[in-house]
Amino acid sequence: MSRLVLKFGGTSVGRAERIANVAAQIAREARAGHEVVVLVSAMSGETNRLIALTREVSVLHDAREYDSVVAAGEQISSGLLAMALQQLGIQARSFMGWQVAIRTTGAHSAARIEDIETAELEDRLARGHVPIIAGFQGLGPDNRITTLGRGGTDTSAVAFAAALGADRCDIYTDVDGVYTTDPRIVPKAQKIARIGYEEMLELASQGAKVLQTRSVELAMVHKVRLQVLSSFVDPAKMKAEDIPGTLVCDEDEIVEQQVVSGIAYSRDEAKITLRDVPDKPGIAADIFGALDNAGVNVDMIVQNISEDNKTTDLTFTVGETDVDRAVKALKQGAKPGEFGEIIADTNVSKVSIVGIGMRSHGGVARKMFETLAQKGINILVISTSEIKVSVLIESEYTELAVRALHSAYDLDAD
Amino acid sequence: MSRLVLKFGGTSVGRAERIANVAAQIAREARAGHEVVVLVSAMSGETNRLIALTREVSVLHDAREYDSVVAAGEQISSGLLAMALQQLGIQARSFMGWQVAIRTTGAHSAARIEDIETAELEDRLARGHVPIIAGFQGLGPDNRITTLGRGGTDTSAVAFAAALGADRCDIYTDVDGVYTTDPRIVPKAQKIARIGYEEMLELASQGAKVLQTRSVELAMVHKVRLQVLSSFVDPAKMKAEDIPGTLVCDEDEIVEQQVVSGIAYSRDEAKITLRDVPDKPGIAADIFGALDNAGVNVDMIVQNISEDNKTTDLTFTVGETDVDRAVKALKQGAKPGEFGEIIADTNVSKVSIVGIGMRSHGGVARKMFETLAQKGINILVISTSEIKVSVLIESEYTELAVRALHSAYDLDAD
Repeated sequence: MSRLVLKFGGTSVGRAERIANVAAQIAREARAGHEVVVLVSAMSGETNRLIALTREVSVLHDAREYDSVVAAGEQISSGLLAMALQQLGIQARSFMGWQVAIRTTGAHSAARIEDIETAELEDRLARGHVPIIAGFQGLGPDNRITTLGRGGTDTSAVAFAAALGADRCDIYTDVDGVYTTDPRIVPKAQKIARIGYEEMLELASQGAKVLQTRSVELAMVHKVRLQVLSSFVDPAKMKAEDIPGTLVCDEDEIVEQQVVSGIAYSRDEAKITLRDVPDKPGIAADIFGALDNAGVNVDMIVQNISEDNKTTDLTFTVGETDVDRAVKALKQGAKPGEFGEIIADTNVSKVSIVGIGMRSHGGVARKMFETLAQKGINILVISTSEIKVSVLIESEYTELAVRALHSAYDLDAD
Repeated sequence: MSRLVLKFGGTSVGRAERIANVAAQIAREARAGHEVVVLVSAMSGETNRLIALTREVSVLHDAREYDSVVAAGEQISSGLLAMALQQLGIQARSFMGWQVAIRTTGAHSAARIEDIETAELEDRLARGHVPIIAGFQGLGPDNRITTLGRGGTDTSAVAFAAALGADRCDIYTDVDGVYTTDPRIVPKAQKIARIGYEEMLELASQGAKVLQTRSVELAMVHKVRLQVLSSFVDPAKMKAEDIPGTLVCDEDEIVEQQVVSGIAYSRDEAKITLRDVPDKPGIAADIFGALDNAGVNVDMIVQNISEDNKTTDLTFTVGETDVDRAVKALKQGAKPGEFGEIIADTNVSKVSIVGIGMRSHGGVARKMFETLAQKGINILVISTSEIKVSVLIESEYTELAVRALHSAYDLDAD
């Protein structure tokens, strides 16, 4: 008998008949003797509908009212799912964030879970009940509903798995696992059976959309074993050799390590270049301080060597949606003479190779640069971490680069 | 300065622009210096959408999950309305039933309010804030969301007006007041400026749909002055002589009393006749006991005089939707020989005249019977109370009867 936290996303509960299917999946786990806690998102489309209503009503944006309105989506889906389970003879009941209670910070619309009261849940699990918990929401210190931001139900699920000491947290979604890269770009992409937390974290933060970065972080910190599964696959119809999904776990659980595990990409990037930056101490601090004050996250940074030892060019990347804010902050925050022209370019993509094997294998980055050079792809900026190399390239080369790298690191399926 | 509770129904907040209009009406009252508490229903259509979802998912019906799902409707509308008020510079915030808290019985889907905690509301009113309270919902003893049944937001509003000692409870709806009868049947129907609690209660329970019976009962018990107004009328465009709505209040506040104040009708009636009922003690108790056990409410009753002193016919009315249940209960509950044939007829309507003046004026019922006789309308069953006479007639005569009575009691507008 295991203790499992199951998370179902919006597409998994998008219509009444989908809710019935999800209930059947939950019932199967419960009947197998497992202790089961379920986290559920709003029915797909519902959160967007509610957000649109708030925008229609108010250009102002009281995050506390917004949270209350938007959290109704999970209130609806959790109640419906509990009903569907009762229909199958399973003792289920819904819990809102305030009923559990899931205590969060007071940062409405972007709250963080601080504490989960587990006494009642433990009591119900001991009696064989299945708690269906509204994801994405909690209770703030002001006794009002908070939400964790988009994708927050993954984070809720991992937090519950940690608080309840679950054996595994199963994330049911609309894809059947984590792939070596996006199968829409590389048809030969393969499903990864097991992947370490750090690699998954790098893949998620470099653009892979299957899991939210924050939920992987939380899983790593609390050593929660995460399994990504499709809620659209009928396990009864799977072949014995099929991998049911992807397990995100500790490195120790992974027998065969790849040098490079996956290729991620992101088109939501922008490159900003500041010309004629005087080559003297303190100016970089001024520039990045101004961006930080404006809430702009800077990702990659490169500074060209100045030929005359007097001025240099400074290039960095920000999220595509932050470009205008960044340029405004630079113009307002800069002292006279700190830089000349500002050149912004949103026509760029970031492509990253991720693999824990890089730690012990040399020549991994070199192979990346050679592969891209062979295809005639110019590298604009490079950044690296212990288990990742990212390059910024012109957007139109994105698919070409991803496909070439996927082959170069022997990730193509036979 | 007055303390006002304002209630807005679903059609009043049915779309984003309607919510903005309602916010403007609330803001006008707040800016006039009144202390304002608002109760709001779900956006029109939303409750039906949510109920349909629960039916799609489950033929079983866990009332606790149902309440949680359906209460999301008011959660959404109250948050949106608070946002719209903030937009106008009014300090508003939404409250769910559990946040107030509105403590109710545990009868999910049909809970009754037992207590309203007013401390935080009083504090906010003192600071000039406008609390926007989700109607129709409360918190049960099981710490779960309860709902008060359909139309429950009227009841919520009156309960808040009583708990807060409000000077008046304004019910904003899609009609502009209580009329002497349904204006769709009688174009000469007149808006009533003031009406007593008892009369309003009789009109509501005899079929007038403008106010929920329970909310009028509660208003009468707690002496809450109720005003029915249209949220679609712009007060700025009213003429001085226009009556703004209908005030439901104590008799003492009404200067000129009509003998008959209004004519109500209901088509949702059914007549059941039991033939050959032995004329001996205890049988009526058996018959109505069986109906009571089945949860069937009996309204009008008439027993014919038996010609041979041995058997009689027993006729009574039940709600149209209860007919099948009533017939089943009678067949299962009856002992052999208690009655012969059962004849059920749903092709009947109840027409009632209501007026506090009946207490002191004779001949009121006689005029009713004469008027109907002149039009050739046969009376099937009669029942009376101190301030009401109801007759059961064949359905096809409903409009004719209502129009004739409206004229006979001098209620037609000039």
